[in-house]
Amino acid sequence: MLAKHGVISGLGRLTSHSPSSSSSTVLRRQLFLVRTLCGSKIHRLKLIRAMSSTSEADAESVLRTVTPSLDPKRHKGQAGKIAVIGGCREYTGAPYFAAISALKIGADLSHVFCTKDAAPVIKSYSPELIVHPVLEESYSISQYSEEDKRKVQDKVLGEVDKWMERFDCLVIGPGLGRDPFLLECVRRIMLLAKKFNVPFVVDGDGLFLVTNSIDLVKSYPLAVLTPNVNEYKRLVQKVLNCEVDEQNADDQLRSLAKQIGGVTILRKGKSDLISNGETVKSVSIYGSPRRCGGQGDILSGGVAVFLSWAQQLKSDSESPSENPAILGCIAASGLLRKAASLAFTKHKRSTLTSDIIECLGESLEDICPASVSAQQMS
Amino acid sequence: MLAKHGVISGLGRLTSHSPSSSSSTVLRRQLFLVRTLCGSKIHRLKLIRAMSSTSEADAESVLRTVTPSLDPKRHKGQAGKIAVIGGCREYTGAPYFAAISALKIGADLSHVFCTKDAAPVIKSYSPELIVHPVLEESYSISQYSEEDKRKVQDKVLGEVDKWMERFDCLVIGPGLGRDPFLLECVRRIMLLAKKFNVPFVVDGDGLFLVTNSIDLVKSYPLAVLTPNVNEYKRLVQKVLNCEVDEQNADDQLRSLAKQIGGVTILRKGKSDLISNGETVKSVSIYGSPRRCGGQGDILSGGVAVFLSWAQQLKSDSESPSENPAILGCIAASGLLRKAASLAFTKHKRSTLTSDIIECLGESLEDICPASVSAQQMS
Repeated sequence: MLAKHGVISGLGRLTSHSPSSSSSTVLRRQLFLVRTLCGSKIHRLKLIRAMSSTSEADAESVLRTVTPSLDPKRHKGQAGKIAVIGGCREYTGAPYFAAISALKIGADLSHVFCTKDAAPVIKSYSPELIVHPVLEESYSISQYSEEDKRKVQDKVLGEVDKWMERFDCLVIGPGLGRDPFLLECVRRIMLLAKKFNVPFVVDGDGLFLVTNSIDLVKSYPLAVLTPNVNEYKRLVQKVLNCEVDEQNADDQLRSLAKQIGGVTILRKGKSDLISNGETVKSVSIYGSPRRCGGQGDILSGGVAVFLSWAQQLKSDSESPSENPAILGCIAASGLLRKAASLAFTKHKRSTLTSDIIECLGESLEDICPASVSAQQMS
Repeated sequence: MLAKHGVISGLGRLTSHSPSSSSSTVLRRQLFLVRTLCGSKIHRLKLIRAMSSTSEADAESVLRTVTPSLDPKRHKGQAGKIAVIGGCREYTGAPYFAAISALKIGADLSHVFCTKDAAPVIKSYSPELIVHPVLEESYSISQYSEEDKRKVQDKVLGEVDKWMERFDCLVIGPGLGRDPFLLECVRRIMLLAKKFNVPFVVDGDGLFLVTNSIDLVKSYPLAVLTPNVNEYKRLVQKVLNCEVDEQNADDQLRSLAKQIGGVTILRKGKSDLISNGETVKSVSIYGSPRRCGGQGDILSGGVAVFLSWAQQLKSDSESPSENPAILGCIAASGLLRKAASLAFTKHKRSTLTSDIIECLGESLEDICPASVSAQQMS
């Protein structure tokens, strides 16, 4: 099914003299690049670099493919149940952004598991979220004995455990903070997710935890890491024991993902780079020059939704289709970049993360109209 | 670079018979004044006063100069990381206004350091802010011994210390209140900022603290004070030991700034007057007759952003350009006055501070279009 839509536009196609009519916009842009760059030495150099670089994914095709048709016969929950593990006394915006983005993209239910202090605030941002005040930080149990602390941890795990099986994907890390007691709880939540084969996206302070305990995600194919510049740097140093090599960015990313046993890594940047240790894809369409904090949280919520949908698609079609984690990353990256671009045209320099979230629906609708798929189903 | 844009339009030009085509709106208005006022004695008197008054800054040119180009290669944080120190059990609106204004103008990250009681409320206003519930007021530690109180203070300082180096500018004072224990913490935060050479804007209750301990800011060139009528009166009484002299407003302001060792003072009023003890500039463009509370907080947040940008510009160009604090004040004053004017045309008597904040983006875009600078960079 994915092949039908020409999901992956490899750069190999660039060498073809007569591209098929289904050529993607990206492919056409690349061909334009080939034609226009010929001439000067510097242009030839750029061309060589473009030809040898990682292939650009056709994010719009991926979005059209993984986004499920809207079927009136479906019931609540079938379009995705997402849970964000994050939110502490200090940070409340990040888990909200991740959770509300999941809903705005089209998930049916979005939960947040946060500390008791964070819960009322996150609840106040939106009545749409289901917010569980179950996590604990060190300061609230500082007077407890070691045994009692362990009991508190067990209780936290019990609260998450009873929900775990219902979730299609977790987002672990937005606004988590770095409290040791809290991170220990989250470590055990990751083990629980793996036990139930629930995929998870790790971002923010979740990456701090994972970078220091790489075994937590090693060889778990349903784990996606979404590091930014600094988080990627720390991952490379820790796992590959070297510095980031921008000249061989795609090879290094592939090595890193392979070294962690084939987890999927989405390296955020001017172009987003995605690898699971085998293929490497980039997403460069759209985007905005605004770098306000919180955009990474939209991305992590988005990856969770699209990964769930891609996995559903895979199990429905029973075909040996592309890796759902890779597809989820491509789709989320493409949609965020389009929404950020649209928000920027509206709000310019004053664009905030909430403005981008407000553009998620319009952006997805533009690429993948709901009315069409709903009509097809009726 | 600033000269190129004709940033400072001195009133000297008024005597020129053929003003350059780059004359600002203000200059044109002043020429209109010259032409129309001639005739009666009272009008001649006014004219003489206008001629001898402080030169009007070309705020729009300053805005265009200090506002950075939008470069897709930049990453989160590079367009500014601002922190507001303020917000207590009694006041929560002011720190929010200052912090959200910084983001709406174009900063990437905006933090608030406030008391534990204020934090959930400020967080609930917007998920965009990072709110740290770290400050303490006397009532919450009234049972503590002196030693324990000192320990609490050290802890507060520790919480701010670990972030300080990352900030481009602080805003100290919005909604701070006057609790002695809290003000002592803030006194130490100011010392910490000076140690790290972090600029700060002092407003509201921060000015109460500074007026009573002028050494806190004396001779720190990265300090900006933004007093309103009453705060200015107290400063003049305390530092110059006299009353405010409206007839010699610019000379008195220059003396005041000089006496405090060259800090920059933005005296808010019908016209805003700005001096660092040497030059004196005024900003009189736009503005609104509405005097709803909170506009000073927009200004302080704005000064923080534009000061950071002007300082970045200075360090990038390595030119002996104009004082970043002066430029920051001119830009923030001009933008606030334009946004207030725009909000007033929309909302008239019911204009609130939030309405003005909503007009910051449109106002900046009108003066300094983001799309142009984004295109220039691509």
